[in-house]
Amino acid sequence: MPQPANTPKQGKVSSITSQQADFPAWYQDVISKTELADNGPVRGTMVIRPYGYALWERIQGELDERIKAAGAQNAYFPLLIPESYLHRESEHVEGFSPELAVVTHGGGRELEEPAVVRPTSETIINAYFAKWIQSYRDLPLLINQWANVVRWELRPRLFLRTTEFLWQEGHTAHASAEEARDYAIKILQEVYEDFMVHVMAVPVITGRKTARERFPGAEESWTCEGMMRDGKALQMGTSHELGQRFSNMFGTTFQTPEGVDTHVWQTSWGVSTRLLGALIMAHGDDYGLRLPPELAPIQVVIILISPDSTIEATGMQLMQELKEAGCRVEMDSDTHTSYGRRVTNWELKGVPVRIEMGQRELDTGNVTIALRDTREKQSIPVTSTVTVVPKTLSSIQHGMLKQAQSFRDEHTYPATTLEDAAEKAIEGKGFATIPWSKVGDKGEERLAESGLTVRCLVTEDGSLPVGMDEKDLLAIIAKAY
Amino acid sequence: MPQPANTPKQGKVSSITSQQADFPAWYQDVISKTELADNGPVRGTMVIRPYGYALWERIQGELDERIKAAGAQNAYFPLLIPESYLHRESEHVEGFSPELAVVTHGGGRELEEPAVVRPTSETIINAYFAKWIQSYRDLPLLINQWANVVRWELRPRLFLRTTEFLWQEGHTAHASAEEARDYAIKILQEVYEDFMVHVMAVPVITGRKTARERFPGAEESWTCEGMMRDGKALQMGTSHELGQRFSNMFGTTFQTPEGVDTHVWQTSWGVSTRLLGALIMAHGDDYGLRLPPELAPIQVVIILISPDSTIEATGMQLMQELKEAGCRVEMDSDTHTSYGRRVTNWELKGVPVRIEMGQRELDTGNVTIALRDTREKQSIPVTSTVTVVPKTLSSIQHGMLKQAQSFRDEHTYPATTLEDAAEKAIEGKGFATIPWSKVGDKGEERLAESGLTVRCLVTEDGSLPVGMDEKDLLAIIAKAY
Repeated sequence: MPQPANTPKQGKVSSITSQQADFPAWYQDVISKTELADNGPVRGTMVIRPYGYALWERIQGELDERIKAAGAQNAYFPLLIPESYLHRESEHVEGFSPELAVVTHGGGRELEEPAVVRPTSETIINAYFAKWIQSYRDLPLLINQWANVVRWELRPRLFLRTTEFLWQEGHTAHASAEEARDYAIKILQEVYEDFMVHVMAVPVITGRKTARERFPGAEESWTCEGMMRDGKALQMGTSHELGQRFSNMFGTTFQTPEGVDTHVWQTSWGVSTRLLGALIMAHGDDYGLRLPPELAPIQVVIILISPDSTIEATGMQLMQELKEAGCRVEMDSDTHTSYGRRVTNWELKGVPVRIEMGQRELDTGNVTIALRDTREKQSIPVTSTVTVVPKTLSSIQHGMLKQAQSFRDEHTYPATTLEDAAEKAIEGKGFATIPWSKVGDKGEERLAESGLTVRCLVTEDGSLPVGMDEKDLLAIIAKAY
Repeated sequence: MPQPANTPKQGKVSSITSQQADFPAWYQDVISKTELADNGPVRGTMVIRPYGYALWERIQGELDERIKAAGAQNAYFPLLIPESYLHRESEHVEGFSPELAVVTHGGGRELEEPAVVRPTSETIINAYFAKWIQSYRDLPLLINQWANVVRWELRPRLFLRTTEFLWQEGHTAHASAEEARDYAIKILQEVYEDFMVHVMAVPVITGRKTARERFPGAEESWTCEGMMRDGKALQMGTSHELGQRFSNMFGTTFQTPEGVDTHVWQTSWGVSTRLLGALIMAHGDDYGLRLPPELAPIQVVIILISPDSTIEATGMQLMQELKEAGCRVEMDSDTHTSYGRRVTNWELKGVPVRIEMGQRELDTGNVTIALRDTREKQSIPVTSTVTVVPKTLSSIQHGMLKQAQSFRDEHTYPATTLEDAAEKAIEGKGFATIPWSKVGDKGEERLAESGLTVRCLVTEDGSLPVGMDEKDLLAIIAKAY
């Protein structure tokens, strides 16, 4: 078991299970104690509580900005899809059929054709692309939607596998295979990887999925894989080249400048509320969440230690100044609750910086600054707080990424044979790397028997293996969520 | 038929049906030609296309800001609700049963208990409020969610009545009936009315619903009613006092400071993609949409009349300056398409200000500014454009509100008897006002036979009739969407 980032000191009572004792129990405890989410009444569904939803809003905002910068426009397609639509693409329906929720009755009557609650929207979106696209002038068509989807889950787990989840799904149509591939990769790198690395502080590995792990109906799937603090992999986002499969089935064609009717090439790509699971497990410790400042809904909390009008006035002024400096700040003036309990609560919530102000602090003209990532405290002059805090947030952000990177490096093991790779991934609780030529489709089947999967195929130098032959690539092998 | 705001001049060919000829056909034409939305494949559902969704994003952004300022936090509750939940409140289930979509199969099996796709979330939210609320310290609990809901529609119409629609639904719990009422009214006035009047430029009437028109399960419903350009009323947003009905059914109790277990008092409130229908019908004319600048996704479009690098450079610089001045600007450099067609298109889309730049303009150091609301044009020096345009946007905003206000006043008719009111509302195509004491429950039934409804009850002076006896109030009578 890898060492967790922070372990409560002996003698200290933590309100949550330790990571070392039971990682899944720790995960559940964090979600419940920080009031991120609850289980819904229909099996596998979830209630996202305000603090969890505030995190999702931050994720949405950052991603939406990048998606728009990549040229895509938001739209909204219906939740209910005629059952027959899914049957048009054989691999697609085979992949999703076991997970469908089916509406058989509407308005008090049995429907002539049942409707499925969308598990993803390739089919219904193609029905409209076929209508909207006539000419090469209509291309590329770059659409994104923020929506809920339903996939019936047999072994649900909050955020990671839920029967209903929230996500964005992008769907695009292009005039050539190359352009579609370039766009799928642009989204992977400029939207997903950039966000995950620089905002979530998760150093994801980007690579290509094997045939076995591809999206149902895709010709190529690209992925971002993160390492959680138990060494397991989490697929955080995928971007697919769909080729002409859906356009063939739905008749989505365009006329080229030469007047030739041609089927469009397509992509689809998505990330979901699963990212909240990644955020918890990539950074959390035995005191709760640790939020990277770029993502944190509250970056700084000012804790008034005792009820006093001078302290409160100083706190209010500081809050104002920090807000003007661009920080997201909240004030905790709940002096009826014990100081210790309030600190524990803010640590649980993962707020990057606490500023503690009491009589002692004011007498000396100082405040205490406590950093959530390292749990270090320092005393600084009140007057310099507004210049120090933004720098501190920035250094926490970099520190968290660096720490996650080191953790991943320490738990990544080069292997030479399939058996070696399997053993290292399991015993070392991390990622094993091995030339794909030593795995192959058969090897992948054998790995599955030990609960391992090939997360993705990558190059030696970390660049994306675009257009490269599988035999020259490395496989990343791990247990995965 | 009221005169529409603008009628194309004789001889000009409009690409859409005129309002006067056929208002419903005009409405459909505007939606289709401006590419706002399409019908979905499952009856009554809709596809919201990028321009329509951009409008919805503007609506969401403005409302979300006001909802948060009113103290509510966003969260997310499941789409699927166990069927039994709805049955717990008798009026509620009676109101919604005919409209339910029911999931009977999930993951390839028949479900033990069918789940309904939420038509609204009072029931499921109460199940969690009951769990989360223990003490008076947990109150008020102020929650909002942005979500899709499904209500099976027999006579669907894009945006106005769709089987699936997008909305926000607020749900709150309070320690007293007074506090709940105050909050329901705060939302009505500070969130809904403020947004509708000052951003949408629709001078809504705020009032109380009659018992017949109340939300199923509410003790009191408050509403914002707008007048469309065919004189019909559109209910644009409602805020309900739920009293203790749901808390009684779900056992949502809190302990008072005195230690007494008490059921909470609740509110719920919502607005939906129906607002897009209101936006179209409150301001549109025979040239298409007319968007109030505060809401318009694109406030200013700079049209380059001819392909020329100097014109383009001047246009780019102007765009930059206008963006810095806080305007939402787009450039139309599609000189391959005819000037006339481009102008028609931007008029259709309702963009408030067009700036037209060609050789003639540049030679004189002037640009032409065309205003969408009045269709007036003026020539102004290039150098003063960046100071003139923001002021113009602001004056268009006020002008549109004023115009809508005058239109409503001209189509509002005081009446003395029920027959008089019915005749005036129908013949004059507008609102009739009459003391409620002359209508009553029986009168309401008779109005319904002529397709008329009491939109709401108001006071003589326009203030909200809080705590007032029905007999002292005026009824607003109209045909409604």
